[in-house]
Amino acid sequence: MPMLETYPKSINLDRQKLAAAIDALIACGGACTACADACLSEDTVGELTKCIRTNLDCADVCAATARVLSRHTGYDANLSRALLEACVTACKSCGDECGRHAGHHEHCRICADACRSCEQACRDLLTAMG
Amino acid sequence: MPMLETYPKSINLDRQKLAAAIDALIACGGACTACADACLSEDTVGELTKCIRTNLDCADVCAATARVLSRHTGYDANLSRALLEACVTACKSCGDECGRHAGHHEHCRICADACRSCEQACRDLLTAMG
Amino acid sequence: MPMLETYPKSINLDRQKLAAAIDALIACGGACTACADACLSEDTVGELTKCIRTNLDCADVCAATARVLSRHTGYDANLSRALLEACVTACKSCGDECGRHAGHHEHCRICADACRSCEQACRDLLTAMG
Amino acid sequence: MPMLETYPKSINLDRQKLAAAIDALIACGGACTACADACLSEDTVGELTKCIRTNLDCADVCAATARVLSRHTGYDANLSRALLEACVTACKSCGDECGRHAGHHEHCRICADACRSCEQACRDLLTAMG
Repeated sequence: MPMLETYPKSINLDRQKLAAAIDALIACGGACTACADACLSEDTVGELTKCIRTNLDCADVCAATARVLSRHTGYDANLSRALLEACVTACKSCGDECGRHAGHHEHCRICADACRSCEQACRDLLTAMG
Repeated sequence: MPMLETYPKSINLDRQKLAAAIDALIACGGACTACADACLSEDTVGELTKCIRTNLDCADVCAATARVLSRHTGYDANLSRALLEACVTACKSCGDECGRHAGHHEHCRICADACRSCEQACRDLLTAMG
Repeated sequence: MPMLETYPKSINLDRQKLAAAIDALIACGGACTACADACLSEDTVGELTKCIRTNLDCADVCAATARVLSRHTGYDANLSRALLEACVTACKSCGDECGRHAGHHEHCRICADACRSCEQACRDLLTAMG
Repeated sequence: MPMLETYPKSINLDRQKLAAAIDALIACGGACTACADACLSEDTVGELTKCIRTNLDCADVCAATARVLSRHTGYDANLSRALLEACVTACKSCGDECGRHAGHHEHCRICADACRSCEQACRDLLTAMG
């Protein structure tokens, strides 16, 4: 994200890992929103209710975290860390649940991949934060 | 919230503390959004930039958490817990920052109260979850 | 909302109708999020997919509109009006759809009421804006 | 967005223009969130308050619209149209305001570009919808 390079003060984070996390969070949130709706339109929706719920949660948590990580004014490492941990939990849970349906539904396969990439990007940023 | 009473399956949480937390999260999110904008219109906005940022974060985290807590299908205690902890962090930070300006700005005083009530409601629900 | 009274500059809107609209939008967004999840847990979820989708849309539109209406800095009547009109559309659609299931599901009945109240509050504010 | 190709039912919209609009909305929302925070950290924040407010509005409207457009179950053209029109208004307003500061702040220049691209993508989809 070239936007990150324009911030007028210093940023107390590895900019490359931060940009990777924000991009992954936004991509994951979009995939989860779309997967929830695709599941809702499957004839077997009754077997996908947990997947839909997990998708909706993951979309909300990723969107909020992407926003918080995009802010650097008066930076608070504790909140970033707590949210990244919540994202790891949400993405792990959603990646596992979508993974269960990946053989039947291509949207679940794509979404599981997005969740796993996002989980990894969040873990990488957490590690870089120390 | 009478809506909570209409959920068709059982809920693995203290319903009264859950409703109190959701109400407090929604009220806190609304107060933070309004306080951020009121700070932005103060002539002394240059001294309120950290307050604005903390308000925006707190609004986003509370809104996402209220949504996740409003879902019970395929309930995942780990995510609820991680988000409630992120909320406690966000509300503590925002309540402290708004508290610093409460003597000068009535919107900061009201918002600090909303943050503290929300922090307490989140802690109460966390305690009830064990 | 006492918060509205603390805004440091003048507000070009009927404050009472504005506060009523923001309150109704927040209440409607909360009801829609909860109703979507309650529908998802019904054994007859296959008949409620349109209701769930309409609920999710209405929750997103109401949340965004409540935020925009809570800001007064550099006020832009055109955006408020466009969003209030989108809300009227979303609330009418969701109120009608939930109304169809209100006899079977108490959450749909409560949600339909919240949508209709919100639709009315948005129309009232639009009328007051001229 | 390959996700769009996995939706199990038919989609009543030009898929390429729809994907372009969703991508532009997500990119614009991210740019606006970052630009609001970068403005907040400028020493001249007092001259950027309208820009910050317009950024925050645009981010909220784009995020809600991207979500609604990502859903196809029980499709409602009226809501998509009303939201796309609200987005055109928000993006035009934010693009103009950021454009005024583009010579001084690189984040405003990048954000103005994102707003204009998004405005155009929304107009293109509206035209394709007829």
